Amino acid sequence: MIVAMQENASEEQISHVIGRLIEIGFEVHRSTGERQTVLGGVGGGDTPDIGWLEMLPGVEHVHRIGSPYKLVARRFRPEGTVVRFPNGVSIGGEEVVVMAGPCSVESRDQIFAIAQEVAITGGRFLRGGAFKPRSSPYSFQGMGEEGLKLMRAAASEFGLLVVSEVMEISQIGLMAPYIDMFQVGARNMQNFNLLRELGKVRKPILLKRGIAATIEELLLSAEYVMAGGNYNVVLCERGIRTFETYTRNTMDISAIPVVKELSHLPIVADPSHGTGRRDKVPAMARASVAAGADGLLIEVHNCPDKAVSDGAQSLYPVQLARLMEDLRSIAPAVGRVMSSIDRDLPSVPMEVAAAN
Amino acid sequence: MIVAMQENASEEQISHVIGRLIEIGFEVHRSTGERQTVLGGVGGGDTPDIGWLEMLPGVEHVHRIGSPYKLVARRFRPEGTVVRFPNGVSIGGEEVVVMAGPCSVESRDQIFAIAQEVAITGGRFLRGGAFKPRSSPYSFQGMGEEGLKLMRAAASEFGLLVVSEVMEISQIGLMAPYIDMFQVGARNMQNFNLLRELGKVRKPILLKRGIAATIEELLLSAEYVMAGGNYNVVLCERGIRTFETYTRNTMDISAIPVVKELSHLPIVADPSHGTGRRDKVPAMARASVAAGADGLLIEVHNCPDKAVSDGAQSLYPVQLARLMEDLRSIAPAVGRVMSSIDRDLPSVPMEVAAAN
Amino acid sequence: MIVAMQENASEEQISHVIGRLIEIGFEVHRSTGERQTVLGGVGGGDTPDIGWLEMLPGVEHVHRIGSPYKLVARRFRPEGTVVRFPNGVSIGGEEVVVMAGPCSVESRDQIFAIAQEVAITGGRFLRGGAFKPRSSPYSFQGMGEEGLKLMRAAASEFGLLVVSEVMEISQIGLMAPYIDMFQVGARNMQNFNLLRELGKVRKPILLKRGIAATIEELLLSAEYVMAGGNYNVVLCERGIRTFETYTRNTMDISAIPVVKELSHLPIVADPSHGTGRRDKVPAMARASVAAGADGLLIEVHNCPDKAVSDGAQSLYPVQLARLMEDLRSIAPAVGRVMSSIDRDLPSVPMEVAAAN
Amino acid sequence: MIVAMQENASEEQISHVIGRLIEIGFEVHRSTGERQTVLGGVGGGDTPDIGWLEMLPGVEHVHRIGSPYKLVARRFRPEGTVVRFPNGVSIGGEEVVVMAGPCSVESRDQIFAIAQEVAITGGRFLRGGAFKPRSSPYSFQGMGEEGLKLMRAAASEFGLLVVSEVMEISQIGLMAPYIDMFQVGARNMQNFNLLRELGKVRKPILLKRGIAATIEELLLSAEYVMAGGNYNVVLCERGIRTFETYTRNTMDISAIPVVKELSHLPIVADPSHGTGRRDKVPAMARASVAAGADGLLIEVHNCPDKAVSDGAQSLYPVQLARLMEDLRSIAPAVGRVMSSIDRDLPSVPMEVAAAN
Repeated sequence: MIVAMQENASEEQISHVIGRLIEIGFEVHRSTGERQTVLGGVGGGDTPDIGWLEMLPGVEHVHRIGSPYKLVARRFRPEGTVVRFPNGVSIGGEEVVVMAGPCSVESRDQIFAIAQEVAITGGRFLRGGAFKPRSSPYSFQGMGEEGLKLMRAAASEFGLLVVSEVMEISQIGLMAPYIDMFQVGARNMQNFNLLRELGKVRKPILLKRGIAATIEELLLSAEYVMAGGNYNVVLCERGIRTFETYTRNTMDISAIPVVKELSHLPIVADPSHGTGRRDKVPAMARASVAAGADGLLIEVHNCPDKAVSDGAQSLYPVQLARLMEDLRSIAPAVGRVMSSIDRDLPSVPMEVAAAN
Repeated sequence: MIVAMQENASEEQISHVIGRLIEIGFEVHRSTGERQTVLGGVGGGDTPDIGWLEMLPGVEHVHRIGSPYKLVARRFRPEGTVVRFPNGVSIGGEEVVVMAGPCSVESRDQIFAIAQEVAITGGRFLRGGAFKPRSSPYSFQGMGEEGLKLMRAAASEFGLLVVSEVMEISQIGLMAPYIDMFQVGARNMQNFNLLRELGKVRKPILLKRGIAATIEELLLSAEYVMAGGNYNVVLCERGIRTFETYTRNTMDISAIPVVKELSHLPIVADPSHGTGRRDKVPAMARASVAAGADGLLIEVHNCPDKAVSDGAQSLYPVQLARLMEDLRSIAPAVGRVMSSIDRDLPSVPMEVAAAN
Repeated sequence: MIVAMQENASEEQISHVIGRLIEIGFEVHRSTGERQTVLGGVGGGDTPDIGWLEMLPGVEHVHRIGSPYKLVARRFRPEGTVVRFPNGVSIGGEEVVVMAGPCSVESRDQIFAIAQEVAITGGRFLRGGAFKPRSSPYSFQGMGEEGLKLMRAAASEFGLLVVSEVMEISQIGLMAPYIDMFQVGARNMQNFNLLRELGKVRKPILLKRGIAATIEELLLSAEYVMAGGNYNVVLCERGIRTFETYTRNTMDISAIPVVKELSHLPIVADPSHGTGRRDKVPAMARASVAAGADGLLIEVHNCPDKAVSDGAQSLYPVQLARLMEDLRSIAPAVGRVMSSIDRDLPSVPMEVAAAN
Repeated sequence: MIVAMQENASEEQISHVIGRLIEIGFEVHRSTGERQTVLGGVGGGDTPDIGWLEMLPGVEHVHRIGSPYKLVARRFRPEGTVVRFPNGVSIGGEEVVVMAGPCSVESRDQIFAIAQEVAITGGRFLRGGAFKPRSSPYSFQGMGEEGLKLMRAAASEFGLLVVSEVMEISQIGLMAPYIDMFQVGARNMQNFNLLRELGKVRKPILLKRGIAATIEELLLSAEYVMAGGNYNVVLCERGIRTFETYTRNTMDISAIPVVKELSHLPIVADPSHGTGRRDKVPAMARASVAAGADGLLIEVHNCPDKAVSDGAQSLYPVQLARLMEDLRSIAPAVGRVMSSIDRDLPSVPMEVAAAN
């Protein structure tokens, strides 16, 4: 904690500030220069609210030294976290992990058809929403538990893992049997009660950055989960809100290397929500991998024009396949690999294969 | 719905788009000019997701006509909504209603002392948090139900109403007996499940704008509550996140007249969170009233330097009193009044008065 | 200058940083706590680029103490600057000064008609553009010197002063004879060569905040002008670019009290550009005055629907008159006055009065 | 042009709007549905200012159809523009062109040493500033013409082209003999007078996106240059200002594929200014190429810690070399190539090689 006093601060004001700093647990170093006195507070425990210090008479500026998070900091695990899943897949290791699927689960046919495509192209996770938060009260709101069952069945059929969004505490128990990773959506990134509960869960958490959240705030939210005892957190950059409206959000690709520096947690990218436009997804997926992303979250739909939600940003299966090819060329350039298709090719059941 | 086709769109592409528009319920008008064909879709019900239309071959641009909300629209109640409370106070009428109190309820002494100040200066509501969402997991998290009881007791003592933040569905029943208005915080503005439940409640809702929410999104969230049957919604401008960091947020004062044009709902302003700095609160409170705000939400603390949260933005009681004086001059200039102090002066119990 | 070293910084790294700080002129105070070493640099002259320090091995964070500006700082002139004009009008004193006029000078009839309205309602300055920077190369580009002559003539006729935008160094000499204050537009706020030249001019400068400029950057730009010897600078808040698109820009009303704290320079507000919508101008003008603005810059047009530029944000004369009435009620509430109409009423020449 | 009338618009209001549309040159199509009338205006020439239409009584919303630019639009040159330089290098073709050099030219030794490194690693352009716009009036302001001479000499020695920033019209003639491409900085992106002059120049223009400029505004600025007759424009994404402060700006990588869709002009990326931090430059350079950038603008300095400006974002030569290696792996994955080093290796003069 550094407290810079105003140039004309009185000795009494300086003493008062020193007293208050000591009171909240700091050891204080005083530097008085020709023009200005600067106080350095060392120690002092956790004092996230420092604004009131800045309002004390004679204070010009208060600056916090050190990061407000601990467990998510890179130095807590300099070697980096690898989040491992039952079937041997892991996020944060050498492989760039692709999670793909529709915005919403709509029907058995839809989710099985898409799951097959995801598996064939080398995806590892089936993603899909069962509970859909929508900004209009008049929109489709999701299939609920039935959707989760269908997703689990489709994923198992094709050797995939399942990731799906949890929207409130009451859904945690309901979802747990069907999924391999809980996704926390951008709107819930600072739903601290939910984060606290997810800290007690024994499944990995995929935590998406809020559209107005700084990288530091994203890390503080991950700290909530880790503080509860769940160290398997995967972060996700999915675009922030800026003045540019051509794309739905502005994908902050630089968040990927920044998170890699500040934290040991893996980070994946979601170019579908990041751009909101199908035709921009491949370029941003390639950019994310080139920037060091540990994985991708991509919306794909067998019939995007008829998707009940987010059709505009869902890839056609053939586009996903083409993108995966490109990524197989780019990944090695950054010391990574994509999953081998041969090794993973699921045994496609006859009837589904025929139906396609 | 307007669909502008690309200049080189083929007749087949145009027919396909017309077909899809008719399929989702629109009556289509076609205008073919020298360079370009434009399709106008009339009717068509609720189609919040129009992105997929823009991705159809040959389409240049899709533009939605009309607002996506209905119940919150000004034309639904051109005369404006007045939200009335049991004790005769109302928001949206002639009076500019002041709601003041600490960020968090901390103790009986604290909340009684502050309630007295609020009442004496002409405030109508005691505000205060019992459940505190904090961005660091290591911060104070609120007194819970005990805090609600204290707030209710203090408010009743001094003739005030109570407004406090509800953070999740499970708190609604717990809070209802103690409060007069539920506050939905900025972070929950798009917690649609919570909004839906609050639509069934028989108490008014104070809905704060999210830091990255557009005015349209704020109105859509209010629509969620109204669609559930609860028409008593008060909106609140409390600052948006921009590149300027001198103030904690940038208070969008223009949202006040914009909401007044688009909607019949009352709107109040929160200059405490809007600026994050005590010394800027009075100027922004005055500006809000001058711009037409129906009320103010202000943090005040009897000892801001020792507040467990948000002390930097809490006024000293004497500052609140001075601000109320200024507002008594400004309100008439915009055809409004502040509450008369004489009429409202609570009978201050001897022991509390002595304690101060 | 505060340099916080990383927790694991080596003694060698610390010594290297100390050496570099001394090299660039700082006296260094070292505080080594249990976990971390913090270096305080005092003195050191002007070192605006501190980024390279942060990149030195072992450095966690560098924080500049003190503001990068000097002459614009409040402490340079604690009593505040009052910019005085030949006819006795001054900005920064008790009076809230209104400057109004069309976006562009279009014709003699137009500018005389508008000047009369401005004078009658109590305005002090006629504003108007002679050189129009437009984002499309196919738009009207201004009347040039002819426009300046007309503005000067109209202003003199009705006892007004003239403020008009200078867009490049070559226009300074051309404009000087016709105007009383040079306006620097938002797009030129960081045209440092232009600012330097204006520092040598003997007329006041109205410096508008850029749409993406922080308050600190606005002050640094004013420092450029003052550093050249011209101390008569008036700042102007005119809206910043945010994600909200309902208004053209988001007017940052809080910049008014912030500038008042940080600087001695007067600040006016431009609600026309700040909102881009005529119907929102009055509310934002009132809010600006209530927040402490020293003046207003308002677009008014005798026939806004036919204005060649910015018609949508120009008030009708009758709206300006009504707004001035409102301001006469609000100004006293913040210890200010509007100009008395009686005192100022210009002698309206018969033929012009008849023509209206 | 689409004009949606309010639901309760009168027939008189509708007629008035139709009349005004015809007056400014539109052919009007009227669609009256059950609830609302929508007017479609076709033709109509250039009407960049449509705001006043929206203010007409009875109008709900006005929406412009079609882009406000013509010459920069993709359809003007569907095959894409390739900007060719005298020595055979071209931007917009198969090769990803690297332009590297210091922020400012500081001395002969410095620029020669850096030029050699740029050439050796496969760069094609030497970049460097001779006139330095700085936000503080107390900073280094550039070497001027002497700097240009040194840059030209160094570039010629090592077979490089020169790109340097022009800041005002008066510098165009001075700079022309020394440079191969004029750079327009972010702060001058809307300096329309400068753009107009550069439209008459016979050298290519590198136009950087302003920190608060939308992609559409960037394209409109390019239109200014092309409208003057200079069709050799290269765009540059260099980061926009957002609420995130960890990086100096937020690099909008998605602007690369968006520009590729909307325009035929080449686009390069500047990860040095885009991030402001040396350690983030390689990741963002890789991401830019993966997203389809036609080139890179990179700051490199032989001694970044002692650079007079922007040292924090300048790569060490060895970092540039390593980055170029990575790019040689990524470029082919997106169908591009980097320059072959063997083919380009300049004959390094003995004395310079020895001096290094």
